[in-house]
Amino acid sequence: MSASRIVYLNGEFLPFDEARVPIMDRGFLFADGIYEVSAILGGRLVDNAAHVARLDRSLGEIGIRNPHDAAEWERLQTELMSRNGVTEGLVYMQVTRGVAERDFAFPPADTAPTVMMFTQAKTVAANPLAEKGARVVTVEDLRWKRRDIKSVALLAQVLAKQQAVEAGVSEAWMVEDGAITEGSSSTAFIIRGRTVVTRPLSTALLPGITRASVLRLAAEADLAIEERLIPVAEALEATEAFYTSASAFVMPVIEIDGRRIGDGVPGPLTRRLRELYLDIARAG
Amino acid sequence: MSASRIVYLNGEFLPFDEARVPIMDRGFLFADGIYEVSAILGGRLVDNAAHVARLDRSLGEIGIRNPHDAAEWERLQTELMSRNGVTEGLVYMQVTRGVAERDFAFPPADTAPTVMMFTQAKTVAANPLAEKGARVVTVEDLRWKRRDIKSVALLAQVLAKQQAVEAGVSEAWMVEDGAITEGSSSTAFIIRGRTVVTRPLSTALLPGITRASVLRLAAEADLAIEERLIPVAEALEATEAFYTSASAFVMPVIEIDGRRIGDGVPGPLTRRLRELYLDIARAG
Repeated sequence: MSASRIVYLNGEFLPFDEARVPIMDRGFLFADGIYEVSAILGGRLVDNAAHVARLDRSLGEIGIRNPHDAAEWERLQTELMSRNGVTEGLVYMQVTRGVAERDFAFPPADTAPTVMMFTQAKTVAANPLAEKGARVVTVEDLRWKRRDIKSVALLAQVLAKQQAVEAGVSEAWMVEDGAITEGSSSTAFIIRGRTVVTRPLSTALLPGITRASVLRLAAEADLAIEERLIPVAEALEATEAFYTSASAFVMPVIEIDGRRIGDGVPGPLTRRLRELYLDIARAG
Repeated sequence: MSASRIVYLNGEFLPFDEARVPIMDRGFLFADGIYEVSAILGGRLVDNAAHVARLDRSLGEIGIRNPHDAAEWERLQTELMSRNGVTEGLVYMQVTRGVAERDFAFPPADTAPTVMMFTQAKTVAANPLAEKGARVVTVEDLRWKRRDIKSVALLAQVLAKQQAVEAGVSEAWMVEDGAITEGSSSTAFIIRGRTVVTRPLSTALLPGITRASVLRLAAEADLAIEERLIPVAEALEATEAFYTSASAFVMPVIEIDGRRIGDGVPGPLTRRLRELYLDIARAG
């Protein structure tokens, strides 16, 4: 990024290199914080109301006061995008329980949360990987039990993604008891015939914002939807597969653990769902 | 702490208020880091070689280069203690995977780890709680699967400790499948007759440094040792109970979930183990 990159920290828009947090920030010491990522496409935030609502829910689940209402979040996001001239990419938001002498229990109730935001300029719509299709590997799901909370305690996801990188592929699909739980930073789907299959919501997975939109689009496109666990063996026999996230949108999967999925190219229904999603994303 | 408090950050001894890390530190964004805590008693580090060795092991398990050898760690710890005049309390060490543009996968291999240390002055030997005995509550164990790695992904432990605080007690013992796994920041033990019971080492719990020393002292004191899971129901019927950690040493437990343990006062064998541990801690 350029030297003029601006980030947001605790009420201030600061040059990137000046944005620092005290070592006693509970985000740094305890992963005691929540984050969200919204895509930016054509200068507009994608599915942003849902991301801001999920931020509020995650904060509530771990008892951190949300310092801003939805309108103020969007105002800050928009100003940050504008200051950085980012019209395509991501805006990242993080809230931690704030700065206090290190002690596991919550600090005094009047401790101010730390609020941080930055943008990343990147091509999210015309993504070459979406044309070619992504390859994934399965890895053991090491995560904690409250996967519905989008916390910054992401070490298991970091290790999963690194396994994907070391295998030369784009994403890791995590597996528990023989079934696919989620991608390291995405929701996993397969298609069998005209049926889209993904795991039902619970405390064991993130309620994906893009997941929800794609399921709605799939229903509108007369695809059947099954919300249930996907055994790895079944995924390998799927006619199509894909994953969703705020930045990948709908990403076709053409290979799982070295096994070709369908014809080894992005499947037609997956491509259609990606187009439909991009249409609504562009419409804002 | 006084205004003259000094902390260590990346090669420098800095005034506390100046010690800040960039928002892109992977410790802050991903909990991608490891920590250790050693006690200081009578101006000396307690069991420190084992803590520094465990730091090295944890770092290795997640692929972070250990920036210092054991002798250099101890030199830095000792200098920090000296600069702060701390003769009783704790020294905290944290190493993260460093600063890099946010992306789940590891940053370039030449990314410098972030190294941070601080001291906390506190009474650890003549702790009034050890005289009175601690009360604990059981809570659900929400943690990830690699509990042998002492990472800063501590959100589950924070939430557990907060449940203890809200219940008006000192520690939370985490429970999975009906058995006690660990305390939120300690190792759990019970005593039945003259048998000390604690969970065997595996990837599902931290290899406690104080745990290891106490088991050795218990064996030397002719106590029997059983390393196995402790069902909650069995813990409630124990003759004594205690927990160990770098800062609590051996902490008598007099109540679990409101049920009195033994006579409701610190048990004689627990008191003896605490004395024996303090003897070796003071001897350095």
